[in-house]
Amino acid sequence: MDESTEPTTTDLAPAGRLDAYRRIRRVTETLCEPLRTEDFVVQSMPDASPAKWHLGHTSWFFETFLLKPHLAGYEPVDPRYEVLFNSYYNTVGEQYPRPERGLLTRPTVEEVFAYRRKVDDGIGALLDRRSAEANGGLASVLEVGIHHEQQHQELLLTDLKHLFSRNPIRPVYRPRTGGIHPVPAPARFIPHEGGIVEIGHSGTAADGYSFDNERPRHRVLLQPFALADRPVTNGEFREFLEDGGYADPRHWLSDGWDAVEKNGWTAPLYWRCEDGRWGTFTLAGFRDLDPAEPVCHLSYYEADAYARWAGARLPTEQEWEAVAAARPIEGNLQESERLHPAPIERDLPPGPARIYGDVWEWTASAYAAYPGFRPNPGALGEYNGKFMCNQFVLRGGSCLTPRSHIRPTYRNFFHPEARWQVTGLRLAKEA
Amino acid sequence: MDESTEPTTTDLAPAGRLDAYRRIRRVTETLCEPLRTEDFVVQSMPDASPAKWHLGHTSWFFETFLLKPHLAGYEPVDPRYEVLFNSYYNTVGEQYPRPERGLLTRPTVEEVFAYRRKVDDGIGALLDRRSAEANGGLASVLEVGIHHEQQHQELLLTDLKHLFSRNPIRPVYRPRTGGIHPVPAPARFIPHEGGIVEIGHSGTAADGYSFDNERPRHRVLLQPFALADRPVTNGEFREFLEDGGYADPRHWLSDGWDAVEKNGWTAPLYWRCEDGRWGTFTLAGFRDLDPAEPVCHLSYYEADAYARWAGARLPTEQEWEAVAAARPIEGNLQESERLHPAPIERDLPPGPARIYGDVWEWTASAYAAYPGFRPNPGALGEYNGKFMCNQFVLRGGSCLTPRSHIRPTYRNFFHPEARWQVTGLRLAKEA
Amino acid sequence: MDESTEPTTTDLAPAGRLDAYRRIRRVTETLCEPLRTEDFVVQSMPDASPAKWHLGHTSWFFETFLLKPHLAGYEPVDPRYEVLFNSYYNTVGEQYPRPERGLLTRPTVEEVFAYRRKVDDGIGALLDRRSAEANGGLASVLEVGIHHEQQHQELLLTDLKHLFSRNPIRPVYRPRTGGIHPVPAPARFIPHEGGIVEIGHSGTAADGYSFDNERPRHRVLLQPFALADRPVTNGEFREFLEDGGYADPRHWLSDGWDAVEKNGWTAPLYWRCEDGRWGTFTLAGFRDLDPAEPVCHLSYYEADAYARWAGARLPTEQEWEAVAAARPIEGNLQESERLHPAPIERDLPPGPARIYGDVWEWTASAYAAYPGFRPNPGALGEYNGKFMCNQFVLRGGSCLTPRSHIRPTYRNFFHPEARWQVTGLRLAKEA
Amino acid sequence: MDESTEPTTTDLAPAGRLDAYRRIRRVTETLCEPLRTEDFVVQSMPDASPAKWHLGHTSWFFETFLLKPHLAGYEPVDPRYEVLFNSYYNTVGEQYPRPERGLLTRPTVEEVFAYRRKVDDGIGALLDRRSAEANGGLASVLEVGIHHEQQHQELLLTDLKHLFSRNPIRPVYRPRTGGIHPVPAPARFIPHEGGIVEIGHSGTAADGYSFDNERPRHRVLLQPFALADRPVTNGEFREFLEDGGYADPRHWLSDGWDAVEKNGWTAPLYWRCEDGRWGTFTLAGFRDLDPAEPVCHLSYYEADAYARWAGARLPTEQEWEAVAAARPIEGNLQESERLHPAPIERDLPPGPARIYGDVWEWTASAYAAYPGFRPNPGALGEYNGKFMCNQFVLRGGSCLTPRSHIRPTYRNFFHPEARWQVTGLRLAKEA
Repeated sequence: MDESTEPTTTDLAPAGRLDAYRRIRRVTETLCEPLRTEDFVVQSMPDASPAKWHLGHTSWFFETFLLKPHLAGYEPVDPRYEVLFNSYYNTVGEQYPRPERGLLTRPTVEEVFAYRRKVDDGIGALLDRRSAEANGGLASVLEVGIHHEQQHQELLLTDLKHLFSRNPIRPVYRPRTGGIHPVPAPARFIPHEGGIVEIGHSGTAADGYSFDNERPRHRVLLQPFALADRPVTNGEFREFLEDGGYADPRHWLSDGWDAVEKNGWTAPLYWRCEDGRWGTFTLAGFRDLDPAEPVCHLSYYEADAYARWAGARLPTEQEWEAVAAARPIEGNLQESERLHPAPIERDLPPGPARIYGDVWEWTASAYAAYPGFRPNPGALGEYNGKFMCNQFVLRGGSCLTPRSHIRPTYRNFFHPEARWQVTGLRLAKEA
Repeated sequence: MDESTEPTTTDLAPAGRLDAYRRIRRVTETLCEPLRTEDFVVQSMPDASPAKWHLGHTSWFFETFLLKPHLAGYEPVDPRYEVLFNSYYNTVGEQYPRPERGLLTRPTVEEVFAYRRKVDDGIGALLDRRSAEANGGLASVLEVGIHHEQQHQELLLTDLKHLFSRNPIRPVYRPRTGGIHPVPAPARFIPHEGGIVEIGHSGTAADGYSFDNERPRHRVLLQPFALADRPVTNGEFREFLEDGGYADPRHWLSDGWDAVEKNGWTAPLYWRCEDGRWGTFTLAGFRDLDPAEPVCHLSYYEADAYARWAGARLPTEQEWEAVAAARPIEGNLQESERLHPAPIERDLPPGPARIYGDVWEWTASAYAAYPGFRPNPGALGEYNGKFMCNQFVLRGGSCLTPRSHIRPTYRNFFHPEARWQVTGLRLAKEA
Repeated sequence: MDESTEPTTTDLAPAGRLDAYRRIRRVTETLCEPLRTEDFVVQSMPDASPAKWHLGHTSWFFETFLLKPHLAGYEPVDPRYEVLFNSYYNTVGEQYPRPERGLLTRPTVEEVFAYRRKVDDGIGALLDRRSAEANGGLASVLEVGIHHEQQHQELLLTDLKHLFSRNPIRPVYRPRTGGIHPVPAPARFIPHEGGIVEIGHSGTAADGYSFDNERPRHRVLLQPFALADRPVTNGEFREFLEDGGYADPRHWLSDGWDAVEKNGWTAPLYWRCEDGRWGTFTLAGFRDLDPAEPVCHLSYYEADAYARWAGARLPTEQEWEAVAAARPIEGNLQESERLHPAPIERDLPPGPARIYGDVWEWTASAYAAYPGFRPNPGALGEYNGKFMCNQFVLRGGSCLTPRSHIRPTYRNFFHPEARWQVTGLRLAKEA
Repeated sequence: MDESTEPTTTDLAPAGRLDAYRRIRRVTETLCEPLRTEDFVVQSMPDASPAKWHLGHTSWFFETFLLKPHLAGYEPVDPRYEVLFNSYYNTVGEQYPRPERGLLTRPTVEEVFAYRRKVDDGIGALLDRRSAEANGGLASVLEVGIHHEQQHQELLLTDLKHLFSRNPIRPVYRPRTGGIHPVPAPARFIPHEGGIVEIGHSGTAADGYSFDNERPRHRVLLQPFALADRPVTNGEFREFLEDGGYADPRHWLSDGWDAVEKNGWTAPLYWRCEDGRWGTFTLAGFRDLDPAEPVCHLSYYEADAYARWAGARLPTEQEWEAVAAARPIEGNLQESERLHPAPIERDLPPGPARIYGDVWEWTASAYAAYPGFRPNPGALGEYNGKFMCNQFVLRGGSCLTPRSHIRPTYRNFFHPEARWQVTGLRLAKEA
């Protein structure tokens, strides 16, 4: 895939709008190619959804927020989908219970793909029929839908990885030969002088797309700090583990220690020691642990405990953004098709590396509203704001995130116990 | 299907053995014809299993107990299936956890059908290679396997019905036009004088196949009693419901009342009142409740509460058998392809009717060993005996039971809270 | 206590009625003497009740079923007690939730004792005011109340034992010096020829008191069998344990094995291995395990697994009663004040020993209605009948059972997972 | 009580140290005076602890952190108390499981009071034996212990209130006559211009006592905002309720709505509508709801939902502190002996009122480390830091908080679902 032609929020000018839409939709379907029909159906835990549901829900989003209100004469594909594929929009109406998404063997995979095509036809008609000017009024909703679909691309892969990991047969999503790489040099801490910095997204068209939770841009006062030049690696995390890190409550938050005991955690999700060798389950199957790769599938609790053990701490999201804002958006993202963190080079050039891609980086910041935050109007106001509680912010995107989806101000968020996303950490310190 | 050519335990003479095997295996596959690939995969509750698992497990049974020990040179289709498709045989080895059977998107449906074919080939080779005489030594295991597969045919359908019932789209397994029938005459109680009767199966070849739990045949002393000439109907059960039966603890066993409150039961499973009319979910979809049909999908608790409300009681399994032993094995069984209880005729001829088929009838008897009970030798000893606790005996088969599978001495058993089987009741009284 | 003057159901003649009542009530209070105020209040698990609740509930029983309906001008001590101390009588009215009995710090212990005294005064007045003849009409309810209170005496002690066992301080109810006794000779199996036997209680005054669940007396046909001459001992059970009995699913019922895994059982309740020596918690504190004592605090599952491991089985309740009916009612019962099973003598005389007292003996019989069973009329019909499901019958009484409370036909019952009662086993075999 | 003689952190000069200690200890015991022995024992939910445990734990604190390490020749009162009364200090050793604190009927209440006296004697000896100078080294630990005991005074009362509320008898802790007061004028929003403000405690002796979580003092940049001049009242909250607030997910955080559904919340904790009138349970028993009182016993979710419904938001803790820092520390605190929020006057003078006392005010701030936060050294480092996750900060103290315990920088924290503390809210808005 030629990254230079990637859709970005800035090229959603009237002419390119439909192209951008179609490109994103096609990516989703390409990601499904390695799946067998059976793989689309199952929900391996309440947090995850079947691939089929992701396909349906992203189409429902366009149907609900664009076709039904705006395309004259549009007939819903199936009125029952309004409930089946509604994730959490109370304003739209009733929702089929999330933990039961895996019960829906019908509509079949074929029928859901047919649903997608009909929605695509509808969007084509909508953008066609209306003048570019008029479309302008819908563009912001279309953009939300496109970025929404990109989020579900990542979820589709993480949910599938979890599903495959539970099968003793260990299915492979896409084979890839790996290897063990040399251990990189220790991380360097890059100082930042603190002071007043601007955080968040301006919301202007010139600055491209943003979700409501990134706004408004505002000033914060930072104390001096230092940020590691790269994420923590598997090899480094294994030292924590071998030092008894999972057995010593002093490293852990109280809730984290409870989680360790309740869940019996002794290593990151997907790590497994077989015949004395650590390996990990990946979308390419189970393979030996590469100590040079950024560690991933950590809960917030594990990231935080590691940092404390290492004599450091997690950065706040403001600290992270203050550093990231100056870095180019490049890295091991979805388009690399690696679908796994890439090993850290033995010797990194000076300056912060691997800011984008590889692993989402847990920050010390609880997910909360920026001062003056205003949710989107209408049902889309439920997109982000109502989750501002009990979650922590992650920054930077992962190897499963599309390049056009990530930016310095992007705020991802998960509950601190969640481990099935591609989540790692980068250390910070007081200056 | 011509019932006269149905396999029975008596025609498993050397020549017919392979035919019998093939016929049963074909029935299972025929039952799967209406399914879409997606329908094979999902487990809708821990008690149920995916259709795919039933297909694999019944093949595993033949592979484990016949091919591996007896077919020289046999190579297991996939060594991992030994764990994946082992239901509960600790003697055989480890089992994949029952509540997680729905996580296995692989092996695919196609691969499981391939597994079946290879096992079928193996059984063909086994019976072919060995002389009829030698085969005799394996016949009893083969027979267990055949009857085992028939049990799973019924489970496959009940599990599928449960799965479809949880889908708001209400998929249809096989369309069927029904209707509302006239209310039958009240049940008559047929007296039995009691005394010493023989119960259970002789275990001799002349008497055909039996499971170990039906043996030994033994004498019991019955008090005089009376048994209703037919099962309780939907219409009769609706009276209980409309009389506040589900709201009055006095009708219920203590554990039953707890189940009512914990589960919020207000009607039999699959009943639903829509727009003031009662309907029920069937393998032909949701349709109006026919008051003339035997009521089904009752827990033991509901059957027992109904009986108490009606001034009667459930029969013991010995009472039931004392009456049933004299009746021909005929009725609304799987071969009728109705897959649902049939309405009771308005006027029944004298004598007990509907003994076999329609609905499994709950008895008042806790499932326990007969005096002198000996489990099968080896791993097959785990088939029945270890479940003799906390369950109740059901008798007579249902509309999903193959005719060649049922007999007067047959003991089915489920936990008293179970409702997803085709379970109803017939009243009894002191004489 | 002079056993010859013990109340029995036969001496409840008009003159002795009030004495019998007072004697039983006094026993309950004597059992409470070693308690501190704090010990009366706490509920250590949902199955157990605080001592204070037992004191209140038994008084509530007399108040509800005798004083309120029969004593003219009686004013309830506190109308709120009607709900607080109602155990499970839906016919009487609402009940305070069982698992929350330990929340009631008020009424205080003192107030509950005051309640008892007022109820005692009321009963005195009731029996005084009414002629002996008229009292006759109430005698059966009074007798139920007296036997009910005796049941709660045993529960009070078992609940207290459980409470103390959860406290690392290991409080002592009543100190007692124990010791280790020589291992008794192996159990002998005493044959019984089977045939038709009479089971159950006649219900006539001449035969003394009985609960409704012991009636009607009826004939059953037994196969020949053999019953061990004594219960299984700690030493014998330890062999099962040391043979890996708790780690081998082949010995266990399926539900039993689930209970082992869910609860992490590795020994009977209250057993604990400290510094390589087995000990057990008793009402006299923690002490070394005496191999000669009957093993106790077994679930049904453990009793059943032991029997299977030992090549035997549990007796049915009919087999047990057929043997016990001929034995005198004597043994290590509550009046011995040992409050713990007594060691088996090294050499027992021929014939069945230890039939009564020491440990309740699990039988293979699910708790069910006898043919022709009729519950007591009115609210007292809830006493026994509604529990005839998912429980197993125990026979013979324990070291905590009053002598006047037990008899050959007495049917105790508990869920198969229950372990906090003084429950053991005696083996049986086919003849 | 003469507030002018109240201990404060500043009068812990050598001479007054022991007096301060004794005064605080006596307050705890005074608070227990209305209790019956039974009331000391029970734990009404896992979050709460028995009064007896609070008495023991606060003594354990002084014994563990002062007497054992510093008083030569000190013999622990009972070595088992080290485990029984350790709350959560992994560094000290094993802890008796928190949800089982209510199982400990022994040590008795009397024994726990004796423990307290022995610890008091020890502290007396410790402070006596050592020179004032040397004591200086222990003063900071003593101060922690004193403030720790004050925290448990508040918990003792809230836990007791919860316990009593679960008893249908509705015990009264301390009778008090209340009444219904006139509805106060609407709240006024007082603007604050924002800018850089200093937050947190300096940690210098001159500024008095502080916990580690209040430090270091640091600068933050605030946007302009406005803060209500008083807390929200019962009457105002009732409007939310009557407007269907508990039935409309749009007002709620997603986790909050889950909590509403899971717990069946329809009103604040302790509110109950009887015969069409709202009342609430208080330490003075159940009484009519006074619309003029600050609403209390709200979860964070309810406070947040109310604010959204009211078109406002919760203040951040920095906003709150920026306003509070200038206000005198006075109000309806523990010393008023009201033990319940006091009605808001109909007309308040200009400026923020009721900053301290009445109700803890939920802020929008997740509980987190201040920049540069350093936990206390040693085991006391577990006091605050390990809870910095999944909780929200509350400010200002309540009617149960001692006056000498509260200050502008004080950070209380609870999980957002907690309702049994005296928790309410004050609204904020963007300027």
